Amino acid sequence: MGQRMVVVGADATGLAAASQARRLRGADELEIVVFDKGNFASYSACGIPYWVAGDVTDAEDLIARSPAEHRARGIDLRLRTEVTELDPAGRRVRSHVLDTGDREWLSYDHLVLATGATPIRPPLPGIDAEGVYGVQTLDDGQALIDALESATGKRAVVVGAGYIGVEMAEALVRRGFDVTMVTRAAEPMATLDPDMGALVRKAMVGMGIQLVCDAEVTGMRTEDGRVRAVTTAENEYPADVVVLGIGVRPATDLARDAGLPLGESGGLLTDLAQRVRGHDDIWAGGDCVEVFDLVSDTLRYIPLGTHANKHGQVIGSGVGGGYATFPGVVGTAMSKVCELEVARTGLSEKAAHRAGLQFHSVTIESTGRAGYFPGAQPMTVKMLAERRTGRLLGVQIVGREGSAKRIDVAAVALTTRMTVEQMTALDLGYAPPFSPVWDPVLVAARAAAKAVRQG
Amino acid sequence: MGQRMVVVGADATGLAAASQARRLRGADELEIVVFDKGNFASYSACGIPYWVAGDVTDAEDLIARSPAEHRARGIDLRLRTEVTELDPAGRRVRSHVLDTGDREWLSYDHLVLATGATPIRPPLPGIDAEGVYGVQTLDDGQALIDALESATGKRAVVVGAGYIGVEMAEALVRRGFDVTMVTRAAEPMATLDPDMGALVRKAMVGMGIQLVCDAEVTGMRTEDGRVRAVTTAENEYPADVVVLGIGVRPATDLARDAGLPLGESGGLLTDLAQRVRGHDDIWAGGDCVEVFDLVSDTLRYIPLGTHANKHGQVIGSGVGGGYATFPGVVGTAMSKVCELEVARTGLSEKAAHRAGLQFHSVTIESTGRAGYFPGAQPMTVKMLAERRTGRLLGVQIVGREGSAKRIDVAAVALTTRMTVEQMTALDLGYAPPFSPVWDPVLVAARAAAKAVRQG
Repeated sequence: MGQRMVVVGADATGLAAASQARRLRGADELEIVVFDKGNFASYSACGIPYWVAGDVTDAEDLIARSPAEHRARGIDLRLRTEVTELDPAGRRVRSHVLDTGDREWLSYDHLVLATGATPIRPPLPGIDAEGVYGVQTLDDGQALIDALESATGKRAVVVGAGYIGVEMAEALVRRGFDVTMVTRAAEPMATLDPDMGALVRKAMVGMGIQLVCDAEVTGMRTEDGRVRAVTTAENEYPADVVVLGIGVRPATDLARDAGLPLGESGGLLTDLAQRVRGHDDIWAGGDCVEVFDLVSDTLRYIPLGTHANKHGQVIGSGVGGGYATFPGVVGTAMSKVCELEVARTGLSEKAAHRAGLQFHSVTIESTGRAGYFPGAQPMTVKMLAERRTGRLLGVQIVGREGSAKRIDVAAVALTTRMTVEQMTALDLGYAPPFSPVWDPVLVAARAAAKAVRQG
Repeated sequence: MGQRMVVVGADATGLAAASQARRLRGADELEIVVFDKGNFASYSACGIPYWVAGDVTDAEDLIARSPAEHRARGIDLRLRTEVTELDPAGRRVRSHVLDTGDREWLSYDHLVLATGATPIRPPLPGIDAEGVYGVQTLDDGQALIDALESATGKRAVVVGAGYIGVEMAEALVRRGFDVTMVTRAAEPMATLDPDMGALVRKAMVGMGIQLVCDAEVTGMRTEDGRVRAVTTAENEYPADVVVLGIGVRPATDLARDAGLPLGESGGLLTDLAQRVRGHDDIWAGGDCVEVFDLVSDTLRYIPLGTHANKHGQVIGSGVGGGYATFPGVVGTAMSKVCELEVARTGLSEKAAHRAGLQFHSVTIESTGRAGYFPGAQPMTVKMLAERRTGRLLGVQIVGREGSAKRIDVAAVALTTRMTVEQMTALDLGYAPPFSPVWDPVLVAARAAAKAVRQG
């Protein structure tokens, strides 16, 4: 008799795990059932802002593999079917088919929790009014696009200034909306230090976005159940559409109810093979787990599609009888704001302070191409190095074309715990169309190494 | 009394060394004299093809710092002055002012040899005819541009298919010439494996360049001392202008005559601080030295502007009483061919064989952006990993926008001796405009890791 793998959540982690397990074990050895309460599976949530902006014209384009393709590969994918209860002791889950109301218990040999994240919706007056949208799922995206197309006015307010908020603000501008962004942070993109966030703010203001920082949203003013404005302590911002980009929290209510171990953030705690701690037959990954931060040596909640996909691979290998681990992250993230590329990895100043690390911080200006090459554009690189040891702690880059992916050099250097002095000798690529002879990352490393030497 | 630093060669290494030493030591402590036989100093030789192409309109743009600026910083820069003899025992050099014929001996406390490289000019019939150009110096570039502007015909032949040859071929096409490239190699860019070189060939043919591979140039047919055609054993290629891009050799005749230690390539041998072996008061760097290859653990001759600049920094620190070393290279190089970006680092298959390494080789196709994102373009990544250990040995990338600088991830991984299995977990940046959720380098690492596991 074969075993059964039950997966809760049909996005990156869940379906990567299912696919990888299927590669390792045939249908005679392993039955695979994947539940998701939504209408879509296996899609790129990170692509939603580009869909809203119109860069991507069809939601189908965001779907990596159709339900039919998954089913053809022997994955029993059940959409619009919610898992409502976990029973780890009984090794079974309870599901609820939304369209028919059918409920049943299904037993498992391997359970994979890939329940993702839930947008934060603070309990503010009017937050559930018509016209207030999240952008976490394709369903959310479609609802927002429908709303934009039928909106009577052209005023949009984005609440929150994280990556998704900033990307959505740009998408709304490109849709022809007057956009106001309200954030409690001092600058947009709070995973950057404020001095680097200020560069993002300038670009956003340059696009015509009205940016309201240091402002706490107190609620939504509504009329007839429909949002009319976003209110703060000091002011009111008229809105035909409101987009919430306040962030997400791990969707772990089911796991909590089942007594599974959660960290400070509410994310599931796992071992290196992505098994839920204390449960050899329950695996978890993606936006519902905490990840190990290799720079600060702490657990953190960093929901990102890249981690979700890697987790799925690791889990699928484990369930399929192979071996793989997820050693951790260094905190790499990037985004595009109009023509500005923004990237970060490692610790920000705030995170380094919190970790008890003392450090030197340097910021340099350079260009993405040789200075004399046509189209050479400015790039700002900020680098943090630990005091005394000189270990690289973090890098932030804001600049034009060719800026963002330079962060990957720092991601590898962080992973391998290089010092900034060692980095100065890195044999990075050079040709005038791609880089000055001293790559901006090397210029920053030299400045940081000098700061470390001078103590 | 102060000391005197004498520098032979006023390009990247020489002037970086002089500038860095000046930063550390004032004019009262250190006199700095820099000789160069040419008309220009401190320029980007790598920019010459872009100048010829017309991307860069003025030779001045390629000059990082003018002679007057150097002199204002207390560097006694003497252009059109050739050093004709070294006397290490007497700690002096003999110079010859080309315009006046004056010759003198000058003593030194620190001698820096930054004599660069000389284009290879095989002793073929007609190689010195009028109309045959090298592209090593700004003087060469100006001579070529003058010739292109006054040429009566529009047929150009490029001999050699290295980076410079390929860049020059494109430059000539953009100047309106019919270009034929003749190379003895099977494919252009022999620092790539032939399967990757074939992708470059296709792009070049697509630009209208006639590519003649596996062909040995036997000479130039001339009339009245002027080149008319390039001849091979089988054929003849009419030419109004011929550009030599056969490669370079270290310009170390002076050093050889003075009995300084040279390696197999003819490049000077140095220690980690860039001091010539056995000579604590003679330093050398740039295109006239051999460098340590951190991947194959051997000395190699890899003339590149990046190394030259780093050498200059290291030498200047040493002369100035500081401390710095140049640990070595991993062989990173890149170029742009029309819209194609080409990059490589580490060992090619041939180099790995030669080093006695057994390896697995994988090649994957991906895209530079998320597949659904507008403008996503194909990218081919080839990766070599050592058999058994799985250590990364080399990467080659050919693709469109955003391809080349991805090589830097591999450069850092090679420097830190990562295995491809370790690389699969790298936290590289992701956002749809910049990368698929699995970066192409990660896709290649996964394929390579699988190949290693399967033995």
